[in-house]
Amino acid sequence: MEEKEIELITKMVIDSISKTKTNSGFAVPVGVSARHVHLTQKDVELLFGEGYKLTKKKELMGGQFACNEQVTIVGLKLRAIENVRILGPVRKASQVEISSTDALKLGINAPIRESGNVAGSSPIALVGPKGAIYLKEGCIIAKRHIHMPPQAAVDAGVNDGDSVSVRVDNERGTIYNNVQIRVDDSYTLEMHIDTDEANAAKIICGQTAYII
Amino acid sequence: MEEKEIELITKMVIDSISKTKTNSGFAVPVGVSARHVHLTQKDVELLFGEGYKLTKKKELMGGQFACNEQVTIVGLKLRAIENVRILGPVRKASQVEISSTDALKLGINAPIRESGNVAGSSPIALVGPKGAIYLKEGCIIAKRHIHMPPQAAVDAGVNDGDSVSVRVDNERGTIYNNVQIRVDDSYTLEMHIDTDEANAAKIICGQTAYII
Repeated sequence: MEEKEIELITKMVIDSISKTKTNSGFAVPVGVSARHVHLTQKDVELLFGEGYKLTKKKELMGGQFACNEQVTIVGLKLRAIENVRILGPVRKASQVEISSTDALKLGINAPIRESGNVAGSSPIALVGPKGAIYLKEGCIIAKRHIHMPPQAAVDAGVNDGDSVSVRVDNERGTIYNNVQIRVDDSYTLEMHIDTDEANAAKIICGQTAYII
Repeated sequence: MEEKEIELITKMVIDSISKTKTNSGFAVPVGVSARHVHLTQKDVELLFGEGYKLTKKKELMGGQFACNEQVTIVGLKLRAIENVRILGPVRKASQVEISSTDALKLGINAPIRESGNVAGSSPIALVGPKGAIYLKEGCIIAKRHIHMPPQAAVDAGVNDGDSVSVRVDNERGTIYNNVQIRVDDSYTLEMHIDTDEANAAKIICGQTAYII
């Protein structure tokens, strides 16, 4: 091997190592999603009373908000998780997003799905202060994803629906594969993982992840 | 005071003391009722599926039985108690019987009522493996009572609907007032108290109480 080639290879290796060390990749802040519920207006009224409207506790991105209202969810094996936060505004289909740990506690086999894709997902019961409903499907474990406004997608060189890998550099150090890109004008740049993923990787809200 | 009077008074006092010591009064075995649910056939089907029939786990007195089936109950404040036993057979109205401690946990103000008298009692949600229902009324704390076959009522000198006092002689030693007598051919002689009352008085199933 010629000296020039050795030099080139050495440079490439050093570059590669230094890239990892300097948090290379497209930076994305991480948000940790706790278990939550989305409801239709009809289900809001079944659970909270006729004509009831969800009330805002805290603004989230994309026009979404955490509500003051909560429900208790009960799985097929009759095990309950109390006081699960509702996220507004109301949607076209009611949906419960839980962690894998929650699914074990509830005794249900919830599939990993992107939000909104509930066909054939797990049944679950919801109880509010004025009523109870039983969703024949609607309970999912949220698939990891990154919300992006269009310009961020351009900057990162990705498109809506793409699947990417993401690296988090911390004491544990974790790489997430199969992270879905979601692009919309209303979105703020943020990667969403659930509480299991955050706890397992020792990630807290606001930490930075890198698309690699 | 004459010697005769003193003698009489002494005898009365001794009689009274010995009466207490020898467990005087009409003996009744005590049964401790854990929280449980009675359901209509309609509600059985809403919770367990169309056409579902309750299945027997253990015979109780008066043709009643503990079922294999259970439900999870949720109160107004969305707090849950999991796996509450159903008692069969089905009834004309669904009813949830809990202890005062349960009511505190559930955050509901359940009234003390005799079984079957649920008008205006507390609302509660029930969740089964196939559905959820919300009872606008139906949750009570059971009023202490003694089930009696007619001959036992004659022997004890009481009538259906009477209110009596009952003494339990044990380490704690407790007298229960306002114990309701219920007489029916199908009944086995037994006093029913709930788990709070049993725990507070250190009473276990099968212990003897005495109508005084």
